[in-house]
Amino acid sequence: MDKPQHHIFVCASFRAGGEAKGSCHKKNSTEFLPYIENEILDRGLDAQVTSTGCMKACDYGPVMVIYPGGHWYGPVESEDVIDEILDALEDRTVAENYLLS
Amino acid sequence: MDKPQHHIFVCASFRAGGEAKGSCHKKNSTEFLPYIENEILDRGLDAQVTSTGCMKACDYGPVMVIYPGGHWYGPVESEDVIDEILDALEDRTVAENYLLS
Repeated sequence: MDKPQHHIFVCASFRAGGEAKGSCHKKNSTEFLPYIENEILDRGLDAQVTSTGCMKACDYGPVMVIYPGGHWYGPVESEDVIDEILDALEDRTVAENYLLS
Repeated sequence: MDKPQHHIFVCASFRAGGEAKGSCHKKNSTEFLPYIENEILDRGLDAQVTSTGCMKACDYGPVMVIYPGGHWYGPVESEDVIDEILDALEDRTVAENYLLS
Protein backbone atom coordinates (compact mmCIF):
# COMPACT_ATOMS: atom_id res chain seq x y z
CA MET A 1 0.00 0.00 0.00
CA ASP A 2 1.33 3.44 -0.89
CA LYS A 3 1.82 5.70 2.08
CA PRO A 4 2.50 9.40 1.81
CA GLN A 5 5.85 10.88 2.75
CA HIS A 6 4.03 13.79 4.38
CA HIS A 7 0.58 13.53 5.93
CA ILE A 8 -1.20 16.84 6.36
CA PHE A 9 -4.09 16.90 8.84
CA VAL A 10 -6.54 19.80 8.76
CA CYS A 11 -8.90 20.19 11.69
CA ALA A 12 -12.50 20.30 10.53
CA SER A 13 -13.93 20.05 14.03
CA PHE A 14 -16.04 16.99 13.25
CA ARG A 15 -17.92 15.68 16.23
CA ALA A 16 -18.28 11.93 16.70
CA GLY A 17 -21.60 11.99 14.90
CA GLY A 18 -20.13 13.86 11.97
CA GLU A 19 -21.42 17.37 12.65
CA ALA A 20 -18.73 19.91 11.78
CA LYS A 21 -19.42 22.54 14.40
CA GLY A 22 -16.24 23.47 16.29
CA SER A 23 -14.07 26.54 16.05
CA CYS A 24 -11.76 25.42 13.23
CA HIS A 25 -14.75 24.64 11.06
CA LYS A 26 -16.38 27.96 11.95
CA LYS A 27 -13.21 29.59 10.68
CA ASN A 28 -13.74 27.80 7.37
CA SER A 29 -10.86 25.34 7.61
CA THR A 30 -12.54 22.89 5.23
CA GLU A 31 -12.62 25.49 2.46
CA PHE A 32 -8.86 25.12 2.22
CA LEU A 33 -8.87 21.39 1.52
CA PRO A 34 -9.20 21.69 -2.29
CA TYR A 35 -6.50 24.39 -2.31
CA ILE A 36 -4.12 22.14 -0.40
CA GLU A 37 -4.91 19.20 -2.70
CA ASN A 38 -4.09 21.34 -5.72
CA GLU A 39 -0.88 22.66 -4.18
CA ILE A 40 0.27 19.12 -3.44
CA LEU A 41 -0.22 18.26 -7.11
CA ASP A 42 1.31 21.50 -8.42
CA ARG A 43 4.36 21.13 -6.24
CA GLY A 44 4.69 17.40 -6.90
CA LEU A 45 4.72 16.69 -3.19
CA ASP A 46 4.40 13.11 -1.98
CA ALA A 47 1.73 14.17 0.48
CA GLN A 48 -1.81 13.34 1.52
CA VAL A 49 -4.28 15.73 3.11
CA THR A 50 -6.85 14.47 5.61
CA SER A 51 -9.55 16.37 7.47
CA THR A 52 -10.02 15.55 11.13
CA GLY A 53 -12.29 15.81 14.10
CA CYS A 54 -11.39 18.29 16.82
CA MET A 55 -7.65 18.18 17.62
CA LYS A 56 -8.12 20.00 20.92
CA ALA A 57 -6.15 23.05 19.93
CA CYS A 58 -9.22 25.21 19.36
CA ASP A 59 -7.62 28.41 20.68
CA TYR A 60 -5.09 28.32 17.86
CA GLY A 61 -7.33 27.28 14.99
CA PRO A 62 -7.72 26.66 12.21
CA VAL A 63 -5.09 24.08 13.03
CA MET A 64 -2.97 22.03 10.62
CA VAL A 65 -0.59 19.26 11.72
CA ILE A 66 1.99 17.66 9.47
CA TYR A 67 3.46 14.24 10.23
CA PRO A 68 5.88 12.59 10.55
CA GLY A 69 7.55 15.94 11.28
CA GLY A 70 5.00 16.59 14.00
CA HIS A 71 4.67 20.30 13.34
CA TRP A 72 1.48 21.94 14.57
CA TYR A 73 0.47 25.14 12.79
CA GLY A 74 -2.12 27.79 13.41
CA PRO A 75 -3.99 29.91 12.75
CA VAL A 76 -4.11 28.74 9.14
CA GLU A 77 -6.51 31.37 7.85
CA SER A 78 -5.48 32.02 4.26
CA GLU A 79 -3.96 30.50 1.15
CA ASP A 80 -0.86 32.62 1.81
CA VAL A 81 -0.35 30.90 5.15
CA ILE A 82 -0.75 27.49 3.51
CA ASP A 83 1.81 28.50 0.87
CA GLU A 84 4.28 29.49 3.56
CA ILE A 85 3.82 26.17 5.35
CA LEU A 86 4.14 24.13 2.14
CA ASP A 87 7.19 26.16 1.09
CA ALA A 88 8.79 25.18 4.38
CA LEU A 89 7.81 21.55 3.87
CA GLU A 90 9.50 21.54 0.47
CA ASP A 91 12.58 23.22 1.93
CA ARG A 92 12.65 20.75 4.84
CA THR A 93 12.35 23.65 7.26
CA VAL A 94 9.56 24.94 9.49
CA ALA A 95 7.18 27.87 8.97
CA GLU A 96 8.18 29.57 12.21
CA ASN A 97 5.55 32.33 11.95
CA TYR A 98 2.71 29.88 12.42
CA LEU A 99 4.35 27.15 14.45
CA LEU A 100 2.51 26.25 17.66
CA SER A 101 5.25 25.59 20.13
CA MET B 1 1.13 24.06 23.81
CA ASP B 2 1.21 20.40 24.85
CA LYS B 3 1.62 18.01 21.95
CA PRO B 4 1.15 14.27 22.24
CA GLN B 5 4.07 11.87 21.93
CA HIS B 6 1.84 9.57 19.88
CA HIS B 7 -1.00 10.75 17.69
CA ILE B 8 -3.53 8.06 16.83
CA PHE B 9 -5.78 8.76 13.84
CA VAL B 10 -8.92 6.66 13.35
CA CYS B 11 -10.67 6.89 10.01
CA ALA B 12 -14.31 7.83 10.45
CA SER B 13 -14.90 8.38 6.74
CA PHE B 14 -16.18 11.92 7.19
CA ARG B 15 -16.99 13.63 3.93
CA ALA B 16 -16.18 17.33 3.51
CA GLY B 17 -19.68 18.23 4.64
CA GLY B 18 -19.38 16.11 7.73
CA GLU B 19 -21.43 13.08 6.72
CA ALA B 20 -19.79 9.91 8.01
CA LYS B 21 -20.69 7.51 5.24
CA GLY B 22 -17.59 5.67 3.97
CA SER B 23 -16.47 2.13 4.55
CA CYS B 24 -14.54 2.64 7.79
CA HIS B 25 -17.55 4.30 9.36
CA LYS B 26 -19.84 1.55 8.08
CA LYS B 27 -17.58 -0.88 9.89
CA ASN B 28 -18.22 1.10 13.09
CA SER B 29 -14.77 2.62 13.49
CA THR B 30 -16.13 5.51 15.54
CA GLU B 31 -17.48 3.14 18.19
CA PHE B 32 -13.88 2.42 19.17
CA LEU B 33 -12.98 6.02 19.95
CA PRO B 34 -14.12 5.93 23.61
CA TYR B 35 -12.34 2.59 24.08
CA ILE B 36 -9.09 4.01 22.73
CA GLU B 37 -9.46 7.11 24.93
CA ASN B 38 -9.88 4.91 27.98
CA GLU B 39 -6.96 2.68 27.06
CA ILE B 40 -4.71 5.74 26.66
CA LEU B 41 -5.64 6.80 30.19
CA ASP B 42 -5.38 3.29 31.68
CA ARG B 43 -1.98 2.73 30.13
CA GLY B 44 -0.75 6.22 30.98
CA LEU B 45 0.20 6.81 27.36
CA ASP B 46 1.16 10.29 26.22
CA ALA B 47 -1.17 9.97 23.25
CA GLN B 48 -4.07 11.72 21.56
CA VAL B 49 -6.75 10.10 19.44
CA THR B 50 -8.32 11.96 16.54
CA SER B 51 -11.02 10.86 14.12
CA THR B 52 -10.52 11.68 10.47
CA GLY B 53 -12.13 11.99 7.10
CA CYS B 54 -11.45 9.27 4.54
CA MET B 55 -7.77 8.30 4.51
CA LYS B 56 -8.07 6.59 1.11
CA ALA B 57 -7.27 3.13 2.38
CA CYS B 58 -10.89 1.95 2.28
CA ASP B 59 -10.05 -1.61 1.21
CA TYR B 60 -8.19 -2.15 4.47
CA GLY B 61 -10.60 -0.46 6.86
CA PRO B 62 -11.30 0.34 9.54
CA VAL B 63 -7.93 2.05 9.33
CA MET B 64 -5.84 3.48 12.16
CA VAL B 65 -2.61 5.42 11.62
CA ILE B 66 -0.17 6.28 14.39
CA TYR B 67 2.33 9.12 14.03
CA PRO B 68 5.17 10.01 14.23
CA GLY B 69 5.89 6.30 13.76
CA GLY B 70 3.86 6.34 10.56
CA HIS B 71 2.36 2.89 11.04
CA TRP B 72 -0.85 2.19 9.16
CA TYR B 73 -3.06 -0.54 10.61
CA GLY B 74 -6.15 -2.37 9.41
CA PRO B 75 -8.63 -3.84 9.63
CA VAL B 76 -9.11 -2.59 13.19
CA GLU B 77 -12.34 -4.40 13.93
CA SER B 78 -12.27 -5.21 17.62
CA GLU B 79 -11.02 -4.09 21.01
CA ASP B 80 -8.57 -7.02 20.91
CA VAL B 81 -6.96 -5.61 17.79
CA ILE B 82 -6.69 -2.19 19.40
CA ASP B 83 -5.09 -3.79 22.47
CA GLU B 84 -2.52 -5.53 20.28
CA ILE B 85 -1.66 -2.27 18.54
CA LEU B 86 -1.41 -0.31 21.79
CA ASP B 87 0.66 -3.09 23.38
CA ALA B 88 3.10 -2.71 20.49
CA LEU B 89 3.12 1.06 20.90
CA GLU B 90 4.04 0.69 24.56
CA ASP B 91 6.74 -1.84 23.68
CA ARG B 92 8.08 0.41 20.92
CA THR B 93 7.42 -2.32 18.41
CA VAL B 94 4.88 -2.85 15.64
CA ALA B 95 1.70 -4.97 15.60
CA GLU B 96 2.80 -6.97 12.57
CA ASN B 97 -0.51 -8.85 12.23
CA TYR B 98 -2.38 -5.71 11.28
CA LEU B 99 0.34 -3.60 9.69
CA LEU B 100 -0.51 -2.31 6.22
CA SER B 101 2.73 -2.54 4.34
